[in-house]
Amino acid sequence: MQHCDTLFHAARIITQDAGRTVLDDAALAVRDGKIADAGPVAELEARWTSDERINLPNMLLMPGLVNAHTHAAMTFLRGLADDMPLMEWLQERIFPMERELTPHIVRTGSLMGFAEMLRTGCTACIDMYIFEQAVFEAAHTAGLRCLGGEVVFDFPSACCPDPRAALETTRALADAWKDDPLLRVAVCPHSVYTTSEKTLRDCARLAEELDLPLHVHLAETPAETAMSLKLHGRRPAAHADACGLLRPGAVVAHAVDVNEAELRLLAERGVRAAHNPSSNMKLASGAAPLPAMLRAGLTAALGTDGAASNNQLNMFTEMGRAALLHKLVCADPTVATAREILDAATLGGAAAFGDPALGRLEAGAAADFIALDLDSPNLRPMYNPVSHVVYAATGAEVRLTVAAGRVLYRDGRFTTFDYPALLREIDDIRDFVLRKTGTGR
Amino acid sequence: MQHCDTLFHAARIITQDAGRTVLDDAALAVRDGKIADAGPVAELEARWTSDERINLPNMLLMPGLVNAHTHAAMTFLRGLADDMPLMEWLQERIFPMERELTPHIVRTGSLMGFAEMLRTGCTACIDMYIFEQAVFEAAHTAGLRCLGGEVVFDFPSACCPDPRAALETTRALADAWKDDPLLRVAVCPHSVYTTSEKTLRDCARLAEELDLPLHVHLAETPAETAMSLKLHGRRPAAHADACGLLRPGAVVAHAVDVNEAELRLLAERGVRAAHNPSSNMKLASGAAPLPAMLRAGLTAALGTDGAASNNQLNMFTEMGRAALLHKLVCADPTVATAREILDAATLGGAAAFGDPALGRLEAGAAADFIALDLDSPNLRPMYNPVSHVVYAATGAEVRLTVAAGRVLYRDGRFTTFDYPALLREIDDIRDFVLRKTGTGR
Repeated sequence: MQHCDTLFHAARIITQDAGRTVLDDAALAVRDGKIADAGPVAELEARWTSDERINLPNMLLMPGLVNAHTHAAMTFLRGLADDMPLMEWLQERIFPMERELTPHIVRTGSLMGFAEMLRTGCTACIDMYIFEQAVFEAAHTAGLRCLGGEVVFDFPSACCPDPRAALETTRALADAWKDDPLLRVAVCPHSVYTTSEKTLRDCARLAEELDLPLHVHLAETPAETAMSLKLHGRRPAAHADACGLLRPGAVVAHAVDVNEAELRLLAERGVRAAHNPSSNMKLASGAAPLPAMLRAGLTAALGTDGAASNNQLNMFTEMGRAALLHKLVCADPTVATAREILDAATLGGAAAFGDPALGRLEAGAAADFIALDLDSPNLRPMYNPVSHVVYAATGAEVRLTVAAGRVLYRDGRFTTFDYPALLREIDDIRDFVLRKTGTGR
Repeated sequence: MQHCDTLFHAARIITQDAGRTVLDDAALAVRDGKIADAGPVAELEARWTSDERINLPNMLLMPGLVNAHTHAAMTFLRGLADDMPLMEWLQERIFPMERELTPHIVRTGSLMGFAEMLRTGCTACIDMYIFEQAVFEAAHTAGLRCLGGEVVFDFPSACCPDPRAALETTRALADAWKDDPLLRVAVCPHSVYTTSEKTLRDCARLAEELDLPLHVHLAETPAETAMSLKLHGRRPAAHADACGLLRPGAVVAHAVDVNEAELRLLAERGVRAAHNPSSNMKLASGAAPLPAMLRAGLTAALGTDGAASNNQLNMFTEMGRAALLHKLVCADPTVATAREILDAATLGGAAAFGDPALGRLEAGAAADFIALDLDSPNLRPMYNPVSHVVYAATGAEVRLTVAAGRVLYRDGRFTTFDYPALLREIDDIRDFVLRKTGTGR
């Protein structure tokens, strides 16, 4: 007999291992934040003793979902402005509020966003924002994994007066969190249309020097392509490549306006695409060609983008919309299968995060997992658990969220922070926003 | 002082009255299944005494949602087959199982569907299926409103050998439930491609004779248009009109492949369109032109369709997808506003149901309403409650569902039926389906 910290026993486990095994009446042995063993409960009971046992009858265990592109802090703007043209939305609503940002607003907005992510089964996210240090503080409080970086623009942000300062902030962030097991820093140029060629090359150089991943918005809209052609004489992917951004493991968010040749280029360079169906639909940006991405061998992940353009940070919502969107756009009900979409939200997200220990539940993987209540009316009857996760679940069926072996959410309670106090703080920020903008209901 | 049965006091009320008033710190007085009064709590306390008082602090009250097109019983097939071409899905998976239907399967499947609807804030639905008597029995048990009818095909169903029998079943159903305050019968020809011209005319005649509404699938796919042209020499809307189906108040489900002239015709005839975004996306049927419908003055409602092609019966899911879908399809982020979508799911649904007392909360309206928990992380902060209902809510925030003044669901409990027993029954049916099909895992 071996000894582990906790044995989790559930009705079913979607492992997302190489054979995509689904186990019935099964258990996970968790030790030191990792999965020590996974399999039928009788086998695990014969092999493992544990300090604690958590029984989850009528629950489905599955890997924690990875939100591959978000701006968690923007949760403070959730629903402030909808149904508006993109440029009017950005220039009249979002940018004026972002000039008022403080570390306190960013920290509180991020923790609000992380609360929603934990509540809906997300255990890791890839973020980019202003005052990212405050995002990391919130992620550290919440206990989930975050790969994030200070956004680099050529114009001033509330945090950084110029791109040089943003890169120095990135360097300081990487140094400050270098020993944290859950938080990792990325170099985050905003996009090819908000940064000069020199800035993009400086970003690539810093990523090379510090061995950090890159995270950039790329080819989000046809309008971006037009701007890139005008500014740089190249389409966004070609320009990003010329500036050295398309490094192996780089995360390109959106990739909506990309052609087949560009998909092949992205695949060859070993970058990962973060697809954000809700945001792209809500802002009428277009539909990223997910089925073509997969055919081209490009690793695709799913993201929520920020709550200002979604307005949820719920990966179950994204999975359902992704699966349906591409069937409509391709006029083919056989594309974007439940299997492919769940893979994107787990294994694809793990690749985007740069950590192959995420997104699957088997010996050696991270103990990042969630439990869904199979007695929820929308999950009955059940013929195929993967179908239910993608098509029938809303995210609210999540009863348990565990990252690195630590229970972060269970049965309506967040374990790592004072949720009622957070609600009071976010309401204070809302009142501040209403005073500043004179908008709202 | 006047006296009512129950006073409901909530943090906010979205009334959906003519001025689209949103009340803060407000109350509803409910008497005899109707709203006797609605307004600021201080005013109602000055006017009303009550037998009971239900306090809903931090809750948002809003009208119960109307699911304008569904096949509740098909919940027993949820997730049996996904990601398949339409005809293969119908002919290899759905039709073979529908030949095995019994009233017990229909009753149990429907109650499972109604459980999900009540759980996610739906208080009325428009249904069509085989053995509709069993659907009505389930609706009567659950306590929600249902406008439903026996589906009329030219070929045999498990219930009726021919269209004449289906029309006689419709007549008997109308007679059996004529005194029920919540259940109403519609004449339900399946579509123009599964019924002869004579059958469609017989349906229109029966609707005329018994003064019943009509409910028909119309123009769901371009393939239906092609079939209609081949069979009848007319596009679906023209053929339905020629057969007398486009009567005032008729509900046409889908209306995907319709042109501007057809939208004007449908509007002139006073029919209502039931838009089913999830089903149309999942089956790759196309996108119904909702913004053009509204411009043409056609009353539009929202529906889930059946769980075999969705796979949810969740009107919040439909609202979010509808709002996003049309922005993408029209390449315009200003169409399908939160206000228009909420109107479709409430007032539009009321029009489709044929009951103007539904879909709004004011004196004289039906006491059909729901309460959402505003402490849910995805609903904070809140600037605009209508935005949150459409874009941020998942349906799982519903804590209370009331139809005709009766509490049907509250805080995880269904009040009108034994939910654990229902789960056991639906699992028995799943086992039966698995034996019959050898499919599913």
